Amino acid sequence: MKSKSNENYQQILAAGYQLIAVKGFNYVGLSEILKVANVPKGSFYYYFKSKEHFGEELITDYFSEYLTSIDSLFNNDKMTGYERLMTYFQGWANTQSTPCNEKKCLVVKLGAEVSDLSEPMRIALEKGAAGVIAKISQCIQVGVKDGTIDPDIQDQMADSLYHLWLGASVVAKLQKNEAPLLSALSTSTLILSSKTNL
Amino acid sequence: MKSKSNENYQQILAAGYQLIAVKGFNYVGLSEILKVANVPKGSFYYYFKSKEHFGEELITDYFSEYLTSIDSLFNNDKMTGYERLMTYFQGWANTQSTPCNEKKCLVVKLGAEVSDLSEPMRIALEKGAAGVIAKISQCIQVGVKDGTIDPDIQDQMADSLYHLWLGASVVAKLQKNEAPLLSALSTSTLILSSKTNL
Repeated sequence: MKSKSNENYQQILAAGYQLIAVKGFNYVGLSEILKVANVPKGSFYYYFKSKEHFGEELITDYFSEYLTSIDSLFNNDKMTGYERLMTYFQGWANTQSTPCNEKKCLVVKLGAEVSDLSEPMRIALEKGAAGVIAKISQCIQVGVKDGTIDPDIQDQMADSLYHLWLGASVVAKLQKNEAPLLSALSTSTLILSSKTNL
Repeated sequence: MKSKSNENYQQILAAGYQLIAVKGFNYVGLSEILKVANVPKGSFYYYFKSKEHFGEELITDYFSEYLTSIDSLFNNDKMTGYERLMTYFQGWANTQSTPCNEKKCLVVKLGAEVSDLSEPMRIALEKGAAGVIAKISQCIQVGVKDGTIDPDIQDQMADSLYHLWLGASVVAKLQKNEAPLLSALSTSTLILSSKTNL
């Protein structure tokens, strides 16, 4: 089996993040990725069947790391369920209020671009987004149980909170400021808060 | 002044909508637009300085028409403020639950793609999105006045409703189904409803 811990593999992924998070998938040529990664073409094709296969692996790798980082926050017993979720959203606001760079923005940046063009990449993004929503949903349940999140909250609110933050991130990129993210923070507080928080 | 009612101009814009709403901006070559529009290159450069200038005009034309259609709904005195907004969102759900085609999806499709790449196109999208949010905000005030929208609704909710629908539209494209849009409908109902609607 080809080791994914191999330095060349990691350098190609890192170059991909750096370029694709800013330019999108189609704007970035393979030669540009190889140049930034500083690896020969043969190394690329040793790991990836095609640029599309590389895109799929990039998305899978991104979510693998992202979901692990969410887990460590959402399993933090020192915080209430409400605090864990609001810390997560505050972190989202902090990350998205600066220009795109490596290791962020992949659903924001690629969601609309690739969904009409590549089935493997679309499916990888769909699976990743569903994973994030499932974790938000579980954390809402923690907050409902510890009394910090409104017990009448509806099932679809995990979806809607994720959609809200995704849309606010797109508009923050358009406006080049963090105002949409601050609106999303206020709205998240309103949606989640039980009366004991207010 | 170059007439925008000219048939060639309209054919070029129509071809642009049709191609760019599916493929995104960068994927579509000028030659493809000319072929679908069935006009010679000279006609394109008579109206547009560059492909970027064309993209900017396309976005401006899209919002001009879109905002006019919102006006005719939001000024309909036969409906309450709440009914006008929910009709608008129901229409959004209907439009986005089918694959992208002409005359829709431009913020969903192009927001993330062009914001890092073209200042004129980014500004045109930013201006258009701000126009839609302003109209949602005015319609919320109509509903608050006629007693059909929660009078305690916060100022940022017009932004958040737009962001929610934008994000839900991106995820609906990823999932290839309308579930995210149905979630957004339920959440919009909850956010807007005054107790008299429930």
